[in-house]
Amino acid sequence: MKLLTVGSVAFDAIETPFGKTDKIIGGAGTYISITGSYFTPEQGVVSVVGGDFPKEEIEMLKSRKIDLEGLQVKEDEKTFFWSGKYHNDLNTRDTLVTELNVLGTFDPIVPESYQEADYLMLGNLSPQVQKQVIERMAKRPKLIVMDTMNFWMDIAWDDLMETIKMVDVLSINDEEARQMSGEYSLVKAARKIIEMGPKVLIIKKGEHGALLFHGQNMFFAPALPLEEVFDPTGAGDTFAGGFIGYLAKTDDTSFENMKRAVLYGSAMASFCVERFGTEKLLDITPVELSERVQMFRDLVAVEGRI
Amino acid sequence: MKLLTVGSVAFDAIETPFGKTDKIIGGAGTYISITGSYFTPEQGVVSVVGGDFPKEEIEMLKSRKIDLEGLQVKEDEKTFFWSGKYHNDLNTRDTLVTELNVLGTFDPIVPESYQEADYLMLGNLSPQVQKQVIERMAKRPKLIVMDTMNFWMDIAWDDLMETIKMVDVLSINDEEARQMSGEYSLVKAARKIIEMGPKVLIIKKGEHGALLFHGQNMFFAPALPLEEVFDPTGAGDTFAGGFIGYLAKTDDTSFENMKRAVLYGSAMASFCVERFGTEKLLDITPVELSERVQMFRDLVAVEGRI
Repeated sequence: MKLLTVGSVAFDAIETPFGKTDKIIGGAGTYISITGSYFTPEQGVVSVVGGDFPKEEIEMLKSRKIDLEGLQVKEDEKTFFWSGKYHNDLNTRDTLVTELNVLGTFDPIVPESYQEADYLMLGNLSPQVQKQVIERMAKRPKLIVMDTMNFWMDIAWDDLMETIKMVDVLSINDEEARQMSGEYSLVKAARKIIEMGPKVLIIKKGEHGALLFHGQNMFFAPALPLEEVFDPTGAGDTFAGGFIGYLAKTDDTSFENMKRAVLYGSAMASFCVERFGTEKLLDITPVELSERVQMFRDLVAVEGRI
Repeated sequence: MKLLTVGSVAFDAIETPFGKTDKIIGGAGTYISITGSYFTPEQGVVSVVGGDFPKEEIEMLKSRKIDLEGLQVKEDEKTFFWSGKYHNDLNTRDTLVTELNVLGTFDPIVPESYQEADYLMLGNLSPQVQKQVIERMAKRPKLIVMDTMNFWMDIAWDDLMETIKMVDVLSINDEEARQMSGEYSLVKAARKIIEMGPKVLIIKKGEHGALLFHGQNMFFAPALPLEEVFDPTGAGDTFAGGFIGYLAKTDDTSFENMKRAVLYGSAMASFCVERFGTEKLLDITPVELSERVQMFRDLVAVEGRI
């Protein structure tokens, strides 16, 4: 099934306790679509970059069967740039630089060939832009998944509330769920947020796993305890890419299948954090992926009756 | 005697965002043995209280088939007292009062009828006292489980290192595992701690579940996302009581059975936090318990091949 991803394609410069990078490619659209490419060969991206974005990176994305007709290249402008430094626990970070550049005036043009996509992934962007994309589809996708962040809760609450009413699945982290709902208990937070619009809510808890709320049903996927988290950048986007990629591949949006999709998203995210940026995501074999998913299942497996 | 528990029997005064209590009964020995009573009717407690400890609470414990021959009552002294106030997130707390009283000079006398117990639970006490109990057993128990806390790492490191070499299972929380090992990654921390002595390590992560490390094997039990955590006091002790209680009942210390024991411990702890102190623990039916354990299994269940 066809998957359309909207999200930033950008430069990041990252510092963690283990080292630092120069400008490397990043952005939600990049992580989501690279991850999605493990699941479906029919994928398009709507985004924008400047003339400084390396042609070889565009070729890399194309080589993964990611359709870039929807990637606008503004030759005279500069690509979105974010720079951050993680603290020792890797759970918190300081943003050092945010240069919106081309993203400041981003008009998300959806090419005609994408307008009937069955699966739509709205990466973290302003809720106005996310809403525009939904409105520009020729038909309502089977499933719309939306990511957002606390920043938009602070500055664009009304737009956010409008947009989440239009989506099926909202994906946010635990602190964002608490901020959005005003509830500390994630069970209560989920109930309130589902009343705001989305039928399904995913609450990402980083190294503590992810919760999937689907009507009255609840599922928990652990995170795999890792020897070393090298760089958490993009883990949430990678999770989203694995989640919607698996759903697009299997074309089944039942609760049971969404559980599997959460495991695939978690597995992909566990690879993402093993190296800087997208490095590890470019180099996962099908066997590695299925073994990793099995590790997630084994981690919580209890045999027999108890 | 199947299960011997050593731990404080005490008074607590607790304040949470939901209310506060006067002096109520608490202490590791109390939580562990009440929880253990759901699993085995052959249980003894080694502890000490003062003359101020209510006779009706002693009768309550006896009514749960907890043998109190090992409970010393020092009529002219006062019972250990702890008072604490939880912050709004319930994950952190301030200790307001600690009065050691009878615990300051506690000599853990193990009655002869307890000295051949197969399962020994060392609740959080000084590592010297824990070690004394092990040495006073007539034979080496099949399984020794030990709880401890950061306080003993700070003031009694050498004794702690001696005592953990003598036990099979060590149960601590994530911050304590990090402090003990000097490693942030819990996987690395577990490896180092297992090299220090215990064959099995349980790392409790509170609302984020618990990890069981058993040689090269790893198991994760989620915590049940709850509508409301009312009072976390005693949750760790309750977990330990459910864990060793289930092992004592089934008399099987394999990794597979320890997984089940972790689920029972987690289920009992999820009841504990629903009300103040031991209140909910006194009133759980067998059906409620098995339904709760099933909820833990369902929470992570994924059907079929993926």
